[in-house]
Amino acid sequence: MTANADTRLRRLPDKGRNDIQLARDILDEARVCHVGFVADGQPYVVPMALGRDGDRVLLHGSVVSRLMTNLADGLPCCVTVTHLDGLVLARSSFNSSMNYRSLMVFGSATMVEDTADKKRCMDVLVEHLLPGRLPDLRPSTRKELNATTLLSLPLETFSIKVGEGPPDDTKSDVDTPIWAGVVPLKLKAGKPQAAPDMVKGVAVPAYLENLLGT
Amino acid sequence: MTANADTRLRRLPDKGRNDIQLARDILDEARVCHVGFVADGQPYVVPMALGRDGDRVLLHGSVVSRLMTNLADGLPCCVTVTHLDGLVLARSSFNSSMNYRSLMVFGSATMVEDTADKKRCMDVLVEHLLPGRLPDLRPSTRKELNATTLLSLPLETFSIKVGEGPPDDTKSDVDTPIWAGVVPLKLKAGKPQAAPDMVKGVAVPAYLENLLGT
Repeated sequence: MTANADTRLRRLPDKGRNDIQLARDILDEARVCHVGFVADGQPYVVPMALGRDGDRVLLHGSVVSRLMTNLADGLPCCVTVTHLDGLVLARSSFNSSMNYRSLMVFGSATMVEDTADKKRCMDVLVEHLLPGRLPDLRPSTRKELNATTLLSLPLETFSIKVGEGPPDDTKSDVDTPIWAGVVPLKLKAGKPQAAPDMVKGVAVPAYLENLLGT
Repeated sequence: MTANADTRLRRLPDKGRNDIQLARDILDEARVCHVGFVADGQPYVVPMALGRDGDRVLLHGSVVSRLMTNLADGLPCCVTVTHLDGLVLARSSFNSSMNYRSLMVFGSATMVEDTADKKRCMDVLVEHLLPGRLPDLRPSTRKELNATTLLSLPLETFSIKVGEGPPDDTKSDVDTPIWAGVVPLKLKAGKPQAAPDMVKGVAVPAYLENLLGT
């Protein structure tokens, strides 16, 4: 699970358009992305929540965050989403690996400033992070919206890398009596823990039950 | 789940030493990190497997990978590990968030060249990714070791960010009958899938059973 940046760049023209649906799927399954940017020559990689509105990646943060301000000003970034799908156990260390789906989106973000679009996109973000929850919540106030910077990064220049399938051992290793195969991995939800100050008599909502089933 | 790079940098002197054990724990629980670097002014964020040997982060890849070569040559990087621990459901979108533990390690990697050290560190990596598996495997060949670049990044300059606990709502929101609390999230292992070409009669090893229990 490593990569060669130069190889990836050369591959972009081939991979870009064809895999747009896979890119969307990778984004839709993710709640967290890793945002890379450069400040004074030093690379940073910061985790952020994400959403998707059509072919826009949505990021949000506080208006007082300098990172959000810099990103809104067009600081080049790389937004990477990785799903670790499994451990691939070969008969040797050398051929062991991982199954995963990883998407890198390159570009510059812009601020979503139009109030109606911003409101709608914030709702999209909330539904992305926990489908079904939005109708439960009171609408955001104008003050809350004003305190939030919402950024949009176009899903245009991207690169996908996928590792899948069983281990690929050399013939001589295959014949040895060592367990080989794939251990699937998945991010799973545990039992919801109610807030200590929750008013009495509120049932666990259906959208949380759905989450547990996945 | 956002961050301000400048704030983080200022915080480094306070957080660095005290949280070294937390930094180690975050690394030990992770199989994947996100490596950020810059090429021609463009930031990249690439997922990689990782290991830990004392206070060194271990990364590996193919000797023909230009990225590995550039990192070995001292290209500044940021290695970030994030554990998404839960969804924090407040009574409003605005106060909803996520619980997580995230570690950013800054610096430049060096190649592990000493053969004995390299062999030992590769074993550490294998055991990091799947504890208990190493004794099952044949030793790596010299050819395999030579085909692998092993990098070491010191766990010296780092920043930790942790989100934890229940939602923090405003008083007026707390009194509304909306479910609030935390949904824990955890990467879980599913049923191992044996390779189609596995020799007959090999039982699922104990270290895989242990993995399922976590």
